[in-house]
Formats: sequence, structure tokens, C-alpha cells
Amino acid sequence: MAQPSTISPATLLKDELDIVIPTIRNLDFLEMWRPFFQPYHLIIVQDGDPSKTIRVPDGFDYELYNRNDINRILGPKSSCISFKDSACRCFGYMVSKKKYIYTIDDDCFVAKDPSGKDINALEQHIKNLLSPSTPFFFNTLYDPYRDGADFVRGYPFSLREGVPTAVSHGLWLNIPDYDAPTQLVKPLERNSRYVDAIMTIPKGTIFPMCGMNLAFNRELIGPAMYFGLMGDGQPIGRYDDMWAGWCTKVICDHLGLGVKTGLPYIWHSKASNPFVNLKKEYKGIYWQEELIPFFQSVTLPKDCTTVQQCYIEISKQVKAKLSKVDDYFNKLADAMVTWIEAWDELNPSGAKSAELPKGASK
Amino acid sequence: MAQPSTISPATLLKDELDIVIPTIRNLDFLEMWRPFFQPYHLIIVQDGDPSKTIRVPDGFDYELYNRNDINRILGPKSSCISFKDSACRCFGYMVSKKKYIYTIDDDCFVAKDPSGKDINALEQHIKNLLSPSTPFFFNTLYDPYRDGADFVRGYPFSLREGVPTAVSHGLWLNIPDYDAPTQLVKPLERNSRYVDAIMTIPKGTIFPMCGMNLAFNRELIGPAMYFGLMGDGQPIGRYDDMWAGWCTKVICDHLGLGVKTGLPYIWHSKASNPFVNLKKEYKGIYWQEELIPFFQSVTLPKDCTTVQQCYIEISKQVKAKLSKVDDYFNKLADAMVTWIEAWDELNPSGAKSAELPKGASK
Repeated sequence: MAQPSTISPATLLKDELDIVIPTIRNLDFLEMWRPFFQPYHLIIVQDGDPSKTIRVPDGFDYELYNRNDINRILGPKSSCISFKDSACRCFGYMVSKKKYIYTIDDDCFVAKDPSGKDINALEQHIKNLLSPSTPFFFNTLYDPYRDGADFVRGYPFSLREGVPTAVSHGLWLNIPDYDAPTQLVKPLERNSRYVDAIMTIPKGTIFPMCGMNLAFNRELIGPAMYFGLMGDGQPIGRYDDMWAGWCTKVICDHLGLGVKTGLPYIWHSKASNPFVNLKKEYKGIYWQEELIPFFQSVTLPKDCTTVQQCYIEISKQVKAKLSKVDDYFNKLADAMVTWIEAWDELNPSGAKSAELPKGASK
Repeated sequence: MAQPSTISPATLLKDELDIVIPTIRNLDFLEMWRPFFQPYHLIIVQDGDPSKTIRVPDGFDYELYNRNDINRILGPKSSCISFKDSACRCFGYMVSKKKYIYTIDDDCFVAKDPSGKDINALEQHIKNLLSPSTPFFFNTLYDPYRDGADFVRGYPFSLREGVPTAVSHGLWLNIPDYDAPTQLVKPLERNSRYVDAIMTIPKGTIFPMCGMNLAFNRELIGPAMYFGLMGDGQPIGRYDDMWAGWCTKVICDHLGLGVKTGLPYIWHSKASNPFVNLKKEYKGIYWQEELIPFFQSVTLPKDCTTVQQCYIEISKQVKAKLSKVDDYFNKLADAMVTWIEAWDELNPSGAKSAELPKGASK
């Protein structure tokens, strides 16, 4: 492997990472994750009826926020946090005080690698986040920092140091992350292909980021991880992670940060109802035909040097260029600003820390 | 899988594909490939001493060209074909009359997949070339046209038809394709990671293309597959395939064609001598620091609608912008023009066919 990954992440980050779980039910799924998650702190964002009690298995260290908590903590700014949609998870990113976040859905279980061994998804995400990314040139042997791999012939030496990794996007065995039309057409399709790769998504390429199995460096990119206005009272759902992914990738490209995708896999147990999904998605399915070209052509001015500045700039461009698609994007652009205000309120040093060199903040 | 790959390529293309092999020795390595290669026609480009006889195992259908043949066929234009370097292989692309080319080095053997089964590399390349590419948006589950895979949630429906695939870039188990410095530092590193993936290299991303295990659609991209001036009388070697890859990718991006990388693997048996390689490479190692940014920023005018026009335009930009790096690039730019002239001479309908819609040519 190339030099930078000589770190041993297995025991690392115990006090530097929060696991964020949005849920409406008892968290029995944590039993299976106990060997891997128990050392970490959990932030549970309870969606739906706040009077319902969510049971968390014994022995986990957690804090839990329901809608009443969100309203109390954010006041009027709580309008930017979605309700009745897993987009509410981003509240957990905001209240965390840790450097790293891992977020996982409560229908995701421990997958097995081809040798039959349980995959410690969190450990792999940490490895991904602690080793550099290579967004400026493509390496045909995938992540050059893994054991047994390196940069291939023709890879510029000036780029082999890589850049800090901001996002680690994990994948799913069993139920793939398909849209409603594909679910309807292929109800029985299961993902059984274990692809033993991690790769950096090249600079200039945006991607469909799924929030089911996702880790990121909150200090580097946290304020961009806004999951938008979805669910209750909104014309759209299931585009929360997509929105966050488009914004995040554009900002990572601008700030010289890396986004990795590939390993680790989780076992996605249950396909959501495709009819319900279709209702949530259908506007997104045609809006994305304009949203994606928009994000592919967004450019940020050089004087945007913090994530917050970049994010506010994108909100302005959303208002200017996407409000013609639907008035919803006016609301969303306003919510993006509210989100940043709320973020900075809860993270008073945050706005500044993003400008400081690594290690100098907090 | 998404619809377009319902083709059964195993028996296809027998009369539409040539296998091009550059060599200086007897082709005993073909014995191992016999079950897969024997139905196809071989074009052998003999490098080095033309008086030497190259033995080809019985039962293979082939034509062989040595330096005398190249000089006779191309006359003064033979100056564009390298001597004493595997770059000479591109002569084989030029004299082929087939639609597809597969090129392989004579130290590459049949690899095994994780189940222990022999990999039919050629069949996989054909599958790659006959199914579309998706350069305009990233699919996190890799090639959406493979069995058991599809486009993930958030992938624009307008882009799911894909574009024609021009290039299929295969990988290598055992000896990885490293540069001389990496070979020297890690003499014992072997690639044992079988990554079960094929992916489209995104538009706007260039990559280090290796000529060891490479297939392409000659009608779509052939004239861009010039392997440059390397070896005898030249200041550089081992950048032949890199040069072709940079030019090819830029032209594919401009013309809306796809480049895939990943499967199939071959078994690369022998590491070349790193000291010899260092001598060949060292200028390339620092030149590439300027060449790659050049290719990353090349833009081609809209009125370049054929591969030939694009290639001539690149040759002009090479002369204008890279001659300051070294006078060698003046020579190379001239050779690029000569190559196109020679290509069009040997392929009289070629200049036209590239403009015609698929299926209308030849």
C-alpha cells in the first residue's frame, strides 16, 4: 500500500465519532451490531409521534431527540429539520460534538464478506476516512492506499499524497438502493455481488449518495450534510440524501476534499414499499433531470473558503436557477440558510474551524 | 440488469475482431489461450530484428508483420511507427480490417476467477464493448448493465440508455502495472485482489490506460489509438499506451463515447526489469506532470466530429503547448499527423465512416 494508511483504526476514534440513527421503532437491530457499535456513542433521532417510547437495547450509550426536543433546541429554526422522513437524521449531525459521524438505517444489518466473516462496517468507514482520497486522477487499481495496492504506472507523482477524505459512502448487499420504478419492475432483484473495492469519485463527477450507510468527517464537511425539506408538508421524499450528496460533492470538489465509495457493505434487509416510494419520489424523478445538470455546472467563487460560505452560495444559486422548476426550491433555499444559521448557533467555533488547518480547531 | 446487455457475446464477433500481439519471441504463450483465441484472427507485429523467425503454435490463423513489412507498406510514413518498443503494436490496429481489436502482451496468461475458473478475458471484453457506457453520471453499483445490477436511486432516467462503448480496459493479477520507482521500492508486491467490477470512467476524467489487456471498437475510436514515438531513437519508452489513453479519453469525451475499466483480469507473469524501465521512463515521469494537466484541460471545437479531426486538432495543441516541455513533442505532433495520413491511406472509407451513424459504415 502507499504510505498514508499505516494507521490502525480498529481502536481509534472511539471518542471522536458519533453514530446517528433516525428511527420510528425500537432499535432491536442494534443487537446484531453490538460487537462493533457498543464502544461508540449513539445519537438517535426519533421521527414521528414524540410520545412514543423507543426502546434501545441495554448497554448502549446514547442520547435521543424527538420532535419536541428538536423544536425546543432550535426554536423557529427547527423548520429546517424535516418531519416524518429520515431526513430528520441531519439534526443528529448538528448536535454532535464529535469530529466524525457514521449514520445507518435501522433496517441495515451486519453483512458477511465472501469468506463468511462478519463485516465491521464502521471500522472500514474509519479506514476510508483516515486514508487520503485521490480526486484529481483516476487509479485503475482502485484505492492506492489499501494493502497490496498502489498507484499504477502513469499516475503523476505530485498527486500521490492525495487529499483529506471527507466522505465514505458504503454500499448494500441484498436489497439494492433502487428507485420506485426500478423496484416495481424488478421486485425480486437482490444485490449479491461483493465488489472488493474502494475508490475516490473523481473531481467534477457528482454521484447519487445514499444515506443508509454513510460516514463523514464532520469538521471538514458537516455543514454541507443537510438532508433538505422532505416528508411532512413537503412535495417530495427520498431525495434527502441525494440533495446532501450533490451539495457535498460540489463543495468537496471546490475545497479539495475527497469522497470515497465502495466498501463497506451492510445487509439491507427490507425493501420499502414501492408504491409509497413512488408517491414520495415522482416529483424528484423529473426534477432531477434539471437538478443534476444544475449541480454539474455549479461553480463556487474562490473567496468561498469555508463549507458554510460554499453552502450559502449554493443556496443563492438554487434560488436563482431552480425556483423556475418549482416554488419548492425557494423554500428549500431558505431552509438551507436556516440550517447554516442553526449549525453555527449549535457549533459556535464551527464557522471558524473549517478555515483553520487540520488539527488546529476545537 | 438494465436492458441493453441481453446479447450473448460468447459466439459473437468471431469475424469482426482481430487480436493484435506485439512480440520479439516465439508465441508459446498462445497455447494457454488456445480455447479462447483460436477462433479469432491474429495480427502479430514482430518488433526488433526482422530476420528472426517468430514461431506461432499450430492451428492459429494469423498474419505477421516485421519491420521490413511495415517499411514496405507505409513507405516514408513508416516513421510514425515505433521500433524496439511495444508501441509498434498500433501498426496492427491500422492494418486490421475488423471492427474490434483486442491487444494483449505475450507475457500475459489466463487468470482464474475466485471460484478457480479460467477467465475468458476476450469474452468479457466483448461483453464490455457490446454493452453501453455511462460517462455522464456515476453509478455506485458499478456497471448497471451487468446481471443482477441496475441504476441506483437518483440516477437520471434520461441517461439510462447510455452511450456506445469505445474502449474496454482490463486489469492484471499477479504483477501489477507499476512504474519503475514503485517496482524498485516494492519488488515483491503482487496483485491478488480480484475486484468483481466494471465501471465507466466518468466524462472529464482521464486515466492511465495500460496496453497489456485492452480492447476497443476500431470503427469508433481506432485512429486515436496511436501509441506514439517510443523506443529506438526516441528519448522515452513505456508511455506509448499512456499517450494513447490520454488522447483517446479526451476524444471519447468529446464525441460522447464511453470507456470502461475493470474486468477482465489476465495473469501478468513477469515483471519487466525496473532498472531498464527507469531509463525508459524517467523523462516521462517528470513530463507527465505537465502532460496530464494539458490533457485535463484540452477542449476540442464543436466542428471536430470525426476521430481524425479530433486527433489532428490535438496534434496542433500538442505542438503549440507542449513543445516548450521538450522538442520531442514537436516530433510527436508531426508523427500524429503522419499516423492519421497513414491510417486514412490504409482505411480509405475510414475518414468517412466515423461520421456515419452506427451500422452504416463498411
